[in-house]
Amino acid sequence: MSDSVKKSLKLISSSRLFEGDLQRFEHYSKSCDSNMRFSVYLPPQAKKGKLPMLLWLSGLTCNDENFMLKSGAQRYAAELGIALVAPDTSPRNTGTAGEEDDWDFGSGAGFYVNATRLPWSKHFQMYDYVSKELPAVLGANLPLDIARMSISGHSMGGHGALIVALKNPGMFRSVSAFSPICAPSKCPWGIKAFSGYLGDDRMQWLQYDASELIDKTSEKLSLLIDLGAADEYLEAQLFPDLLEEACVEHKHPLKLRIHPGYDHSYYFVASFIGDHLKYHASALAG
Amino acid sequence: MSDSVKKSLKLISSSRLFEGDLQRFEHYSKSCDSNMRFSVYLPPQAKKGKLPMLLWLSGLTCNDENFMLKSGAQRYAAELGIALVAPDTSPRNTGTAGEEDDWDFGSGAGFYVNATRLPWSKHFQMYDYVSKELPAVLGANLPLDIARMSISGHSMGGHGALIVALKNPGMFRSVSAFSPICAPSKCPWGIKAFSGYLGDDRMQWLQYDASELIDKTSEKLSLLIDLGAADEYLEAQLFPDLLEEACVEHKHPLKLRIHPGYDHSYYFVASFIGDHLKYHASALAG
Repeated sequence: MSDSVKKSLKLISSSRLFEGDLQRFEHYSKSCDSNMRFSVYLPPQAKKGKLPMLLWLSGLTCNDENFMLKSGAQRYAAELGIALVAPDTSPRNTGTAGEEDDWDFGSGAGFYVNATRLPWSKHFQMYDYVSKELPAVLGANLPLDIARMSISGHSMGGHGALIVALKNPGMFRSVSAFSPICAPSKCPWGIKAFSGYLGDDRMQWLQYDASELIDKTSEKLSLLIDLGAADEYLEAQLFPDLLEEACVEHKHPLKLRIHPGYDHSYYFVASFIGDHLKYHASALAG
Repeated sequence: MSDSVKKSLKLISSSRLFEGDLQRFEHYSKSCDSNMRFSVYLPPQAKKGKLPMLLWLSGLTCNDENFMLKSGAQRYAAELGIALVAPDTSPRNTGTAGEEDDWDFGSGAGFYVNATRLPWSKHFQMYDYVSKELPAVLGANLPLDIARMSISGHSMGGHGALIVALKNPGMFRSVSAFSPICAPSKCPWGIKAFSGYLGDDRMQWLQYDASELIDKTSEKLSLLIDLGAADEYLEAQLFPDLLEEACVEHKHPLKLRIHPGYDHSYYFVASFIGDHLKYHASALAG
């Protein structure tokens, strides 16, 4: 696999940042049968050997650049010697009818599921892409030790981080989320996405719902979750109470912090990404 | 003045950030005869009294948000107790014919001059706006001590910071610039802008050219300038050599640093904005 993977990786751009390098790549994704882009921040320590990494999943309307432009995470990553990887949030320009029609479905809104319903199932295989294909591509091409991975994300990407971690015991050293969609099978964004990508079979939906996965995971990986009390989507879309109830019921370790005054924007992420990176660095050490 | 100023200030948005508040305002600018927007970051110390501030001038195509979204400066500002203010880079939607035609002239490209040539002279009075009107608006409406101001900026905004500081002895405690256009009367961006806003009279141009102002200032305010050696505009547009020559000739203090590998992007600003804020904080103390 790694030979074909290496051939297909194309460097789009590179910028020096905190003495490390922020690089943007494009490659052909077999899972999505589409070209995909991702961004990688390699701190200066990457010149000396393979580094542990944080996989970051972004939210609705984002691509691979938002986190790198807005979070300020690279400063901490350079201090801690952790690489950062941010994939896009969906395939793009696949020719799927309607892919650009909605901001919360299709392009920029892959929801980290494997679509089973036509026409979306042809390309929208984001679960396989982020949990299987991308880590293999990273390990084969870049100075990254994929045996030392943690995962985090924001909003739709917070949902993605939680489900990918819960469904893959042993794959990640630690998991955290900012403002995650905690029960997508029950909120408007999730119902729209799951109906479109998965159809009416609600049993399929539950496989991608963190609050429903808590009782199915064989691993008690602690969940670190930060939310803003002034988050404009908190009540209508995020439903942290349902995740908290599931964690209490199944004795799953959860650290849920509500921060007064903070909203749903990247300014909230920027304010606490340092805390999260230190948390992940501690889990990734050794 | 402060009464009419207070009436016209409208809060557009507010986000909590590092325990402070990032606020976006709109107001009617008399200088520009136009509504203008600016962003202010008030660190948590603003709850206790008036704060010193850094006035940040942005580059071509930017508005008041780019610096706040991309620089990561707020983390340092919160640590140091300094407010940050970023105005827009031009008036917008003025109805001036051609204002949206070019990315390097008109909207998003005011060049911090007072236009003297029609039709631009009706609204494009950015020099007066940033050096006179905006500080008065800030002092009258926000917990800012405009007797303790420093100034900085990037690219076109680096040029703006240098000329506004050089033309106003005593107004700023310190000045710095990232990747500034150092001799706008001689580079393509500046020649286009000055021709358009000021016409053919080159004596007018020299009033807005940092390299030409060095021998005219009565104040020996030290200039701190950072540039990236991989800056794609370094040779064709920035001309730091001309500014350095003028500083040497007139014994004007200059600290010019060239950083290997860094480009012209906000990633360069993000990498060194902490250094600059500490430098300004030291000048603003007391």
